[in-house]
Amino acid sequence: MTAQHIYLYSASSAVRDRAAVRRAVRRLQALGHSVELDPSAFATRMRFAGDDETRLAAIHRAAASGADIALITRGGYGLSRLLADIRYPLIAKAIDRGTVFLGYSDFTALQCAVLAKTGRVTWSGPAAADDFGGEGEPDDIMQACFDDLVSGQGEGTGWRLPAREAREKAWSAAGTLWGGNLAMVTSLAGTPWMPQVKGGILFLEDVAEHPYRIERMLTQLLHGGILARQKAIVLGQFTHWRPVPNDNGYKLQTVVDWLRAQLPRVPVFTGLPFGHVPTKVCLPVGSKVTLAVEGRDAFLLWGHAH
Amino acid sequence: MTAQHIYLYSASSAVRDRAAVRRAVRRLQALGHSVELDPSAFATRMRFAGDDETRLAAIHRAAASGADIALITRGGYGLSRLLADIRYPLIAKAIDRGTVFLGYSDFTALQCAVLAKTGRVTWSGPAAADDFGGEGEPDDIMQACFDDLVSGQGEGTGWRLPAREAREKAWSAAGTLWGGNLAMVTSLAGTPWMPQVKGGILFLEDVAEHPYRIERMLTQLLHGGILARQKAIVLGQFTHWRPVPNDNGYKLQTVVDWLRAQLPRVPVFTGLPFGHVPTKVCLPVGSKVTLAVEGRDAFLLWGHAH
Repeated sequence: MTAQHIYLYSASSAVRDRAAVRRAVRRLQALGHSVELDPSAFATRMRFAGDDETRLAAIHRAAASGADIALITRGGYGLSRLLADIRYPLIAKAIDRGTVFLGYSDFTALQCAVLAKTGRVTWSGPAAADDFGGEGEPDDIMQACFDDLVSGQGEGTGWRLPAREAREKAWSAAGTLWGGNLAMVTSLAGTPWMPQVKGGILFLEDVAEHPYRIERMLTQLLHGGILARQKAIVLGQFTHWRPVPNDNGYKLQTVVDWLRAQLPRVPVFTGLPFGHVPTKVCLPVGSKVTLAVEGRDAFLLWGHAH
Repeated sequence: MTAQHIYLYSASSAVRDRAAVRRAVRRLQALGHSVELDPSAFATRMRFAGDDETRLAAIHRAAASGADIALITRGGYGLSRLLADIRYPLIAKAIDRGTVFLGYSDFTALQCAVLAKTGRVTWSGPAAADDFGGEGEPDDIMQACFDDLVSGQGEGTGWRLPAREAREKAWSAAGTLWGGNLAMVTSLAGTPWMPQVKGGILFLEDVAEHPYRIERMLTQLLHGGILARQKAIVLGQFTHWRPVPNDNGYKLQTVVDWLRAQLPRVPVFTGLPFGHVPTKVCLPVGSKVTLAVEGRDAFLLWGHAH
């Protein structure tokens, strides 16, 4: 694996656990990388990593850094407020020079906006504190996917589908991969930052959202015509929600079954190893990909996309 | 006050507290009204008041009932799923014959859809279980506004603004009143059920949503161009959320201040007595109203709108 220049910056919520970011720096350095910490990575303004100007400047510094990887310290909330003021041409230029913008969760807003405004590819994957900052070892699969990404060797990812989603006859579709955090994607509906992707592969995950809220968000995308325009919907991990007594049997699978009934022509696959979980793959948002399913094996393939 | 025919039906979450609905029936009867309970008012299908067909049929029966008031038993969640299948002309016909559709919370979805599809007026106000079903006496102001509505005598409502919002010079604006629950209004962004109101008076409330989520929803409406198109934004009650240590001073007022900075040309008023609180006024969604402010007094006036 080649040593890389990794630029860590904070665009969303304030870093509360600085030790986690410092551990992430040391771990990435131990892997042979050169790690640069943005000067406002630890800035704090109420719940944000600095005020809006500070976080905008951090994003623009990451774009100007010439780094191989621009990696968020963490997600949370805060990018929505910045979308109108981000200098998208600066980010496009950085991506064209080879900088990989990487992160997840709140970062989905930036990824969608970059895709909508510039058509450029950003990457869904780890955040420094969450995935490299723990006291234990980072997740093996996350680490392997990250290594593939930074060395430019990743060509795709695969996972095992639940038995009920198995396809006896091989199935595949090609289209633009996009999506990320469901709440963030949905929060762009009706705004200029929602990517207008037709025939795409839309992947979604979320955390701490009850299935009825997941359903309400999917309903918004459905009613906006966004889901029916895709070639496939791929659901990642929906975690950290709590059932309540009033659910009375209503659960995540109820939502998935309901979604399938609404989308007779668009297959919905589940189990993608991506979300607010340690085992997360890296995924190129905005890239042409092929989704191939045979039996219980699903593959997302993007060749040498970046 | 004239005796009215009130039709109670369930369109959203299942009624768990049947005793509350029965108390509401008795209270409305004690006020001299004739109360009809829809046959599926107590239906239950998982978290819903019956499956989608059952709830759709209940809405259509309420429209066909010829009642003076069609009142929801409660809110919760469930109307979003039904929006594509509601027979809007049936509801328009009922409204034209004089039926007042009344409710709040999840009901906002139906109100917005009716406005978008038919231009008809529905009413934001109490729900049977929440506002007439308690063991104690109903709120005086809610009760008085309800009485005004059912007797066709309401001509407006007023409230006291916080000192910082006082206007020394009288200010007023006329436009279509619309809005309701922020999460429900926002969940219609990018769908055919979002009313396209220009020069309106938009009122919003929510429950159990942290200010950062309130901000994210307002940001979506802002970025969709919806807020800047209004003549005023009126915020009701945002209740039952819990601060967390990471807020670090970020609170509801922070969001209001931020919103004002984003909307230099649209005044944002607060304190409207409406939301998930006992003291809620009745408001005609879709009606032409005048919002008048003088000193700390705010008035919403609709004359004989229904």
